[in-house]
Amino acid sequence: MLKRLPRVVREQQMLDAAVHVFSKRGFHAASMDEIAEVAGISKPMVYAYLGTKDELFVACLHREATRLMEAVAAGVLPTARPDEQLWHGLRAFFTFVGAHRDGWRVLYRQARSEPHFAGELAGMRARIVEVVAGLLEGAATAAEVPGRPGDFTAMAYAYVGAAESLADWLADHEEEDPDHTATRMMNFVWVGADSLLQGRVWRA
Amino acid sequence: MLKRLPRVVREQQMLDAAVHVFSKRGFHAASMDEIAEVAGISKPMVYAYLGTKDELFVACLHREATRLMEAVAAGVLPTARPDEQLWHGLRAFFTFVGAHRDGWRVLYRQARSEPHFAGELAGMRARIVEVVAGLLEGAATAAEVPGRPGDFTAMAYAYVGAAESLADWLADHEEEDPDHTATRMMNFVWVGADSLLQGRVWRA
Repeated sequence: MLKRLPRVVREQQMLDAAVHVFSKRGFHAASMDEIAEVAGISKPMVYAYLGTKDELFVACLHREATRLMEAVAAGVLPTARPDEQLWHGLRAFFTFVGAHRDGWRVLYRQARSEPHFAGELAGMRARIVEVVAGLLEGAATAAEVPGRPGDFTAMAYAYVGAAESLADWLADHEEEDPDHTATRMMNFVWVGADSLLQGRVWRA
Repeated sequence: MLKRLPRVVREQQMLDAAVHVFSKRGFHAASMDEIAEVAGISKPMVYAYLGTKDELFVACLHREATRLMEAVAAGVLPTARPDEQLWHGLRAFFTFVGAHRDGWRVLYRQARSEPHFAGELAGMRARIVEVVAGLLEGAATAAEVPGRPGDFTAMAYAYVGAAESLADWLADHEEEDPDHTATRMMNFVWVGADSLLQGRVWRA
């Protein structure tokens, strides 16, 4: 007899299976049959719980993005110094990407290159930009630096763009230690090129 | 009688027409009929010169990317100080994007969100990353800062990602002066957050 599991547990199992299969096969080649098989659930049940392949992919994206944001938020201590907050946030971010290289490559790049997922991704990106803008504003307020709200959002776009681009690079470099990538980014955003060219570096 | 123009002039006219129509309609809604009409050339001639709509779009992408890189390269004086080089390069980049907001939105975003153009875009991006890595290495060598080649490429990914993300933001903000965006980016990459939080800013 089939063991009855709570709906939420069963959904997480299906999402685990879907992320695994999408990462292994890519969106187009992934089949609902294989996802159902890996999840140990019948295909009609996958459809019943999470909908079509498109809807399942969006559900995967949402879960991975939420996990990523949770990991970053858990890494940042609001009472820490700004550079410590930034370091812990970046470290949590690159550690997450480094531990999920396949998932990043497939979920993020695939989402970016499919017109019908581009809107989903833009929405998640806008949320992340607002979180980063809020952190920047908090740090600037604490340091009593004047700045208009619009400035923090524009600045956050630069931060998020740099981090995405480096994460993409990290995903393709298996030999790179995520802490090292976080240190590169820290030097980029915290120290700045002027000080770097004068030989100053940031160390954890 | 149809005036005979050199092939290269005629091709540029078709590309101008195609960029205009793709920017106005988007890739999918753009029709070869309208492109031919705007170019003042018959549709079979457009096909004969530049191929299918897909090939025409790729030709537009290549021309716009080449123009962008030329504009940036023309702005950078190799004999200038590193901060001046960076400033002039960033200014040329954001001025180009600011003057072609429609083109950026459609060509760049469309290329990014169409699976069959993603490879083209990745190739152009890799070229730009290598150019930026070379500039960074030149500046670091001049300043006698130690660094391994891989470091410059990773760093260049962060620069290019930040610039792309800010360019995307600029494309959506008609009221933003491109020089102002270049100054934001300059503060971001040159001064760094640490000095910014201490009230230091970079000015042209």
